[in-house]
Amino acid sequence: MSRETLARLLITCPDRPGIVAAVSTFLFNHGANITDLQQHSTDPEGGTFFMRLEFQTPHLDVSRGVLERAFAEAVAERFAMEWRFAYAEEPKKMALLVSRYDHALLEVLWRWSRGELPAKVSMVISNHPDLEPAVRAFGLPYHHVPVSKENKAEAEASILELLEGQADLVVLARYMQILSADFVSRFPHRIINIHHSFLPAFVGASPYRQAYERGVKLIGATAHYVTEELDQGPIIEQDVARVSHRHSVEDLVELGRDLERQVLARAVRWHLEDRIIVHGNKTVVFS
Amino acid sequence: MSRETLARLLITCPDRPGIVAAVSTFLFNHGANITDLQQHSTDPEGGTFFMRLEFQTPHLDVSRGVLERAFAEAVAERFAMEWRFAYAEEPKKMALLVSRYDHALLEVLWRWSRGELPAKVSMVISNHPDLEPAVRAFGLPYHHVPVSKENKAEAEASILELLEGQADLVVLARYMQILSADFVSRFPHRIINIHHSFLPAFVGASPYRQAYERGVKLIGATAHYVTEELDQGPIIEQDVARVSHRHSVEDLVELGRDLERQVLARAVRWHLEDRIIVHGNKTVVFS
Amino acid sequence: MSRETLARLLITCPDRPGIVAAVSTFLFNHGANITDLQQHSTDPEGGTFFMRLEFQTPHLDVSRGVLERAFAEAVAERFAMEWRFAYAEEPKKMALLVSRYDHALLEVLWRWSRGELPAKVSMVISNHPDLEPAVRAFGLPYHHVPVSKENKAEAEASILELLEGQADLVVLARYMQILSADFVSRFPHRIINIHHSFLPAFVGASPYRQAYERGVKLIGATAHYVTEELDQGPIIEQDVARVSHRHSVEDLVELGRDLERQVLARAVRWHLEDRIIVHGNKTVVFS
Amino acid sequence: MSRETLARLLITCPDRPGIVAAVSTFLFNHGANITDLQQHSTDPEGGTFFMRLEFQTPHLDVSRGVLERAFAEAVAERFAMEWRFAYAEEPKKMALLVSRYDHALLEVLWRWSRGELPAKVSMVISNHPDLEPAVRAFGLPYHHVPVSKENKAEAEASILELLEGQADLVVLARYMQILSADFVSRFPHRIINIHHSFLPAFVGASPYRQAYERGVKLIGATAHYVTEELDQGPIIEQDVARVSHRHSVEDLVELGRDLERQVLARAVRWHLEDRIIVHGNKTVVFS
Repeated sequence: MSRETLARLLITCPDRPGIVAAVSTFLFNHGANITDLQQHSTDPEGGTFFMRLEFQTPHLDVSRGVLERAFAEAVAERFAMEWRFAYAEEPKKMALLVSRYDHALLEVLWRWSRGELPAKVSMVISNHPDLEPAVRAFGLPYHHVPVSKENKAEAEASILELLEGQADLVVLARYMQILSADFVSRFPHRIINIHHSFLPAFVGASPYRQAYERGVKLIGATAHYVTEELDQGPIIEQDVARVSHRHSVEDLVELGRDLERQVLARAVRWHLEDRIIVHGNKTVVFS
Repeated sequence: MSRETLARLLITCPDRPGIVAAVSTFLFNHGANITDLQQHSTDPEGGTFFMRLEFQTPHLDVSRGVLERAFAEAVAERFAMEWRFAYAEEPKKMALLVSRYDHALLEVLWRWSRGELPAKVSMVISNHPDLEPAVRAFGLPYHHVPVSKENKAEAEASILELLEGQADLVVLARYMQILSADFVSRFPHRIINIHHSFLPAFVGASPYRQAYERGVKLIGATAHYVTEELDQGPIIEQDVARVSHRHSVEDLVELGRDLERQVLARAVRWHLEDRIIVHGNKTVVFS
Repeated sequence: MSRETLARLLITCPDRPGIVAAVSTFLFNHGANITDLQQHSTDPEGGTFFMRLEFQTPHLDVSRGVLERAFAEAVAERFAMEWRFAYAEEPKKMALLVSRYDHALLEVLWRWSRGELPAKVSMVISNHPDLEPAVRAFGLPYHHVPVSKENKAEAEASILELLEGQADLVVLARYMQILSADFVSRFPHRIINIHHSFLPAFVGASPYRQAYERGVKLIGATAHYVTEELDQGPIIEQDVARVSHRHSVEDLVELGRDLERQVLARAVRWHLEDRIIVHGNKTVVFS
Repeated sequence: MSRETLARLLITCPDRPGIVAAVSTFLFNHGANITDLQQHSTDPEGGTFFMRLEFQTPHLDVSRGVLERAFAEAVAERFAMEWRFAYAEEPKKMALLVSRYDHALLEVLWRWSRGELPAKVSMVISNHPDLEPAVRAFGLPYHHVPVSKENKAEAEASILELLEGQADLVVLARYMQILSADFVSRFPHRIINIHHSFLPAFVGASPYRQAYERGVKLIGATAHYVTEELDQGPIIEQDVARVSHRHSVEDLVELGRDLERQVLARAVRWHLEDRIIVHGNKTVVFS
């Protein structure tokens, strides 16, 4: 089984009998060897059905383009499917936005450089110059786009220009600027943010301080898709760490760094491997 | 080392040099053998200092009463301490309030019957008759006090009468009635509730449904002291369990039961063993 | 979707293209509505393929018996499958063996009485009389079969007689006798034991003492199928709890009880819901 | 409270009444302000007593040297203590040995560069040249000392020469050579190794493969002090991650990397902060 010839098919449609049979028979008949299949239904009667398949392409009897058109006609239309094929040969282009904290960024770049994250990293953009040397060490372009109250719109325009055609996924690795609704709308469910709290607890600023003040016994981190509403987008992954009265706010920040690194890395990987389907404001993650 | 002759001393005071030396020397001089000592300071300069000591009483050179008076004069006054001694020989009286769900109640009673919880259980009170047989099987009194919109005040009065002198600790083991501010004020930091969410997320009703709707990837449970403000009291303990898109609201309720049992049992134990000091709206837990 | 009309199909066979298509098409054609499907392959080329399907039976066009025979002929033979159908209408018969510790037994019975474990509990057998009242409170038969060095073979014979036709699953809920190879062979992959360590660490006697002596920082519990080799059978589930230098052997035993309860309960549930396929000395668990 | 003026005192002695009073009174009388105190006794009667204190030095009435000599005479001798003072001003010298895997090394260096690990890193030594650029980027010396069957003794001699006076702590960050008993004896309880299994399970080579073959449901990592007996030294820290039938050996290796990074980083930090006391083949960790 080769990584290079791996393909994935993601499907969302109204649930009804016969979907698995139709899809798997179609693929089998065209020489696609299914190597993984996961599915989920919110309710077999009147609910929504989700499926993720992995298959090998070497023995396909048609080209990819023909396969996709045939699938559209023979299967997708009949079941009113939203669907997409993805091919490991064509890894997603990933851009990262960061401010001054390096931990989330370096974790993602490290894992990428080790081959854990199947992406083509196109660039890192920051509103500060600080992390340029660390990024250059990975052989990656670094763009410094300063942001101030006055130039916010222009800065976003600059960033959009840089990202044009270069970002199937935008990762906010502790980027401390709030993106405009317009910016967000250009990348629907394609911007992943790491929030430093166990959402929906402690939305907004200084979540570690909020957690400290409330006296919680666990702190958390949340990776989510960015939507127009701040901190309200579909949650992809969360994790927590145990804390006690002995931890200061600074200790929470430090412990939280570890959570942020791990949670963001998992979410980015799942996105890159086409394991996430967004449904309403929630995610189905076939991890 | 004997469990029966164990004593505990809890102290809160402004931090300043010399506290540990003063307390430990006082106890040593009176024949108390310190077997455990935990302390915490919010800030050595101008902060608050907390300490919990365990010691053995067999070789005390004075009676407990004399020891306590001597401590007040010789040590506590000098350092402006709030303090209390507790003796394992005199276990706390514990009453439990419950509605229809039995899981939290049975977990506490089961652990108590095994000797894990050092308390004298005085009674179980419920607004429903359902759990009487299960409680009687433990050899415990069960009082059915129905509560309706109309009789709420009378019902509370009846409960207060039952608890009179019988409850150093009141445990709400999924008691589905909101207690009045007056009731709560009778038991300051002596009512423990188990809330079925990771507070402060999902306060109020139906937290599992709220968690389901928000699409969180972890659900939680929180044990806290009850104060006048609903779900806002000092948090004692929390824990979480991993969930996914595959879990229905009913699944969350079922997984949550396990969390509620464990979290409540830990909080009750720590209270009974005098491991908790409340400070403002937070807890110091010397677990 | 009804629980009563739920059916499950479990399959093991050499992996090769077309299995999913063949099985799902067969079921669809006979009116079975697939509501869950999980599969796994050790290697798509030359490996072993495993699949678990859940489906609804109300619209089957044939009787169960006819369906199964048709499946054997039309699908199973072609792919050299091992397979079995199971129906929620016919819950498994479960017998429990226990000695004196009640925690694992009561946990399973509690969950069963709440409807979490889809089984018909046929009986509890013990080599001690102690737990009879607790078991009778659940309305269940309790058989006391004393075991000594001298009567071991007879005792096993008595137990086998009691179990005859009454046990699709035997749960060893801290049963402190070692079963003979002959006994075990009567219930292949149908005896679940809870071992009080993180296997393969600390096999044999007194695992908590062994863990204490070695100074580990986590203790564990393991649920596994019993085979002729002591503590060597296929592992179903494991979990751990954090410990430190502060924990005595007795503390480890107490913490371990909680682990044992949870781990055994999960393993029993997965078995009863036909989520486990044994392959060699390992398990595939479609949880 | 200043980090620079922090001092720590670690004590091991036979337990008996009066230790805490004697130590705390001594420190108080000399102007040392105790800011943290943790203690543990294996048994108050006839057991061993351990204590760790943190205190501030600015108001000491004598020099450190005088304080230590006074402590030896006035307190330590009386209680037959093993003891040592440590001062944050004099961070430990740390050397790291590594082979080709960079994850454990980089995690430690990254945390060090952020100020999470209070050490002076003196050098990195490797039997391979691969990681030199990564290490140089941290501004650290990198020594390549090739090891073969033939030159093992000479290589160790070279390493010892490099370490001479430069290593209060030696960290084996996945160093794939077994150190000789002689080498180990030079650094008693001052070599920390990260073992890629949940010891004592899977000692020796290829633990992830062993774990895969046994079908465990959790994999682990263990940080321990190196002693003459391979994989048998005192355990400092352990952690685990959940795995399933879906994980290949390669997946376990990848998941294990994350465990190794975290577990090693915690152990190294605790050592550098003087939080670990070795007692027999076990550790007391005042974390």
